[in-house]
Amino acid sequence: MSIHPLAIVSEKAIIGSNVTIGPFSIIYDNVRIEDNVTIESHCEIGVPNHLSGGNLLVIGQHSHIRSHSIFYEGSIFGEKLTTGHRVTVREKTIAGKNLQIGTLSDIQGHCTIGDYVRFHSNVHIGQASSIGNFVWIFPYVVLTNDPHPPSNTLKGVTVEDYAVVATMSVVLPGVTIGKGTLVGAHSCVNRNTEAEMVYVGSPAKKICATGGVRLQDGSDLSAYPWVNHFNRGYPESVIEAWKRGEHGLTGGQST
Amino acid sequence: MSIHPLAIVSEKAIIGSNVTIGPFSIIYDNVRIEDNVTIESHCEIGVPNHLSGGNLLVIGQHSHIRSHSIFYEGSIFGEKLTTGHRVTVREKTIAGKNLQIGTLSDIQGHCTIGDYVRFHSNVHIGQASSIGNFVWIFPYVVLTNDPHPPSNTLKGVTVEDYAVVATMSVVLPGVTIGKGTLVGAHSCVNRNTEAEMVYVGSPAKKICATGGVRLQDGSDLSAYPWVNHFNRGYPESVIEAWKRGEHGLTGGQST
Amino acid sequence: MSIHPLAIVSEKAIIGSNVTIGPFSIIYDNVRIEDNVTIESHCEIGVPNHLSGGNLLVIGQHSHIRSHSIFYEGSIFGEKLTTGHRVTVREKTIAGKNLQIGTLSDIQGHCTIGDYVRFHSNVHIGQASSIGNFVWIFPYVVLTNDPHPPSNTLKGVTVEDYAVVATMSVVLPGVTIGKGTLVGAHSCVNRNTEAEMVYVGSPAKKICATGGVRLQDGSDLSAYPWVNHFNRGYPESVIEAWKRGEHGLTGGQST
Repeated sequence: MSIHPLAIVSEKAIIGSNVTIGPFSIIYDNVRIEDNVTIESHCEIGVPNHLSGGNLLVIGQHSHIRSHSIFYEGSIFGEKLTTGHRVTVREKTIAGKNLQIGTLSDIQGHCTIGDYVRFHSNVHIGQASSIGNFVWIFPYVVLTNDPHPPSNTLKGVTVEDYAVVATMSVVLPGVTIGKGTLVGAHSCVNRNTEAEMVYVGSPAKKICATGGVRLQDGSDLSAYPWVNHFNRGYPESVIEAWKRGEHGLTGGQST
Repeated sequence: MSIHPLAIVSEKAIIGSNVTIGPFSIIYDNVRIEDNVTIESHCEIGVPNHLSGGNLLVIGQHSHIRSHSIFYEGSIFGEKLTTGHRVTVREKTIAGKNLQIGTLSDIQGHCTIGDYVRFHSNVHIGQASSIGNFVWIFPYVVLTNDPHPPSNTLKGVTVEDYAVVATMSVVLPGVTIGKGTLVGAHSCVNRNTEAEMVYVGSPAKKICATGGVRLQDGSDLSAYPWVNHFNRGYPESVIEAWKRGEHGLTGGQST
Repeated sequence: MSIHPLAIVSEKAIIGSNVTIGPFSIIYDNVRIEDNVTIESHCEIGVPNHLSGGNLLVIGQHSHIRSHSIFYEGSIFGEKLTTGHRVTVREKTIAGKNLQIGTLSDIQGHCTIGDYVRFHSNVHIGQASSIGNFVWIFPYVVLTNDPHPPSNTLKGVTVEDYAVVATMSVVLPGVTIGKGTLVGAHSCVNRNTEAEMVYVGSPAKKICATGGVRLQDGSDLSAYPWVNHFNRGYPESVIEAWKRGEHGLTGGQST
């Protein structure tokens, strides 16, 4: 264990072996940090708040939280969480393994996130969002939840497995982004999307099957399902399963 | 008074009773913090700058500034200011009471803000903005001010009482958002809006009266005026005044 | 040299004369800070990472890095860099002199930036971007790079000299924004633009020559080329060169 002398670590926090905590970081009481985790400088881990239900913040093993990040108590992260800088994560975020959260992203809490999800920089995940596995959300995307703001009605967004939401798109409250859907940049999605279709515009309209998008790498192969050509950062077991077709994606050809 | 030993507090700062200042925070010289205020960790309060006119930063009583926030000298906040994390507020921001500023929001200064205003996360309030009372601004909204950037011409946005600007909308320079107007998500407003009407799109077009939007809570009542069904976080005196109809809103039915 | 006692400064870092380093800041090993530089509080300068190729971070003389900013090792900045707060700059960013980077901006690295460039608040400069001289990028603009995300294909955006990209616009992968082009607010640019033309919308369409936009300051002069009426923050030598017409801009009249 390597705790910098200018870090502030509660004696009540449960801290595993081989954990590193950087200078000017604060670890609060209600926290369990598992083995082999790195918390960089200027972080706050386990910020107390009355909406957490008194639950622990759990950071799974082999996680890496970059500097200036803030996690509230009452959330649970599986192993191998990786974050950029200045991430904010509120209470009651329940996430699977191998989640990546990009710099400046803001997860508002009270949401569920599957395995191997990738949030790029500066995404905003509203409360009551439900995110599947292998989902990609790109910079400046907002998942909303209030159909007539301000109100007490919370209708979260659902994003199904392997879906991709490109830069600066808004998904309106209660919408389901179907499995393997691609939402193009700068779109506003106001109704449920079909699986493995491309949607673009404001409001977003269905353009074609995802399999109709061609790779611009000279191969002229289909760009989707993306699992056929992109596997950086996924474990060998996942890549092997994809090779066996266990993703269940067709590029929309069978729809 | 509870000042953490790893906070840096100027002896020139004027600090009221029952004030809490967290670790790794800096309080500069030209600051008056009133009674019962909490400043969390990693903040900078009263950052010196030559555009402040040498004016104090005043933080009203019963305020709560969350961690990693930065306030310049030369701004004034009424009582019960509440902020999220990583808020940035520049000089000559003059705000009323009970303002909420969400995480990552950036208030560029030289603007006026009324009472009971709510900025959600990651809003950008350009210089020369004028915000009324009971206004709501949602994530990733930008209020602009330069009609032909870059230039020396500053035409700020005006947002009148009870107006609502939804997620990821831009309001162009010099535009007035009328009383009780609703701007839908992902819109770009390029001209003045009528009171209590709904505007959507880029450029935004008038769709209907706000009173034509129905609550999605099963009641089928009008969602606007929002004061008829939403009052979380407002004091009893305000709620009582609303019950007496003192908001002056009709849902656009009389327009 | 003025290093705050609560700053952490590596003995391996190369630090010039008259350098100021604020409290709670960290200067890592692989850094050269030239003379007359100010690093404010809560910064990280020279964050180690395996993608830097072991290269130094160089901060040119007379630079000013505001608080809570993070710079990775392996980037080079010419003299008079000025930043807002909470700036993030990744490895292999090669920038000329007199760059301004606004609060919350995120430069993803592996990009080149010319002289006298202005990034306003909260811009996102994707990897493989190539930015000319005298460029302006306004808040919440995203320069993308992946034509079919996620993939291994990187097609960066090129922004030529004197171009202006207004608030909350997205530039799609591989697009070139021509010299002196103006992209209006809330636009999505999906193809190369002609020099000194105005583009607006999603997808952005050519509207008129930039010289057709009139100043709203009562003069009714053309607002573009902007160098004819705006020179705040540029050195006298540049302003004199502009007066001699060395910018090569016509407002699109000759196109």
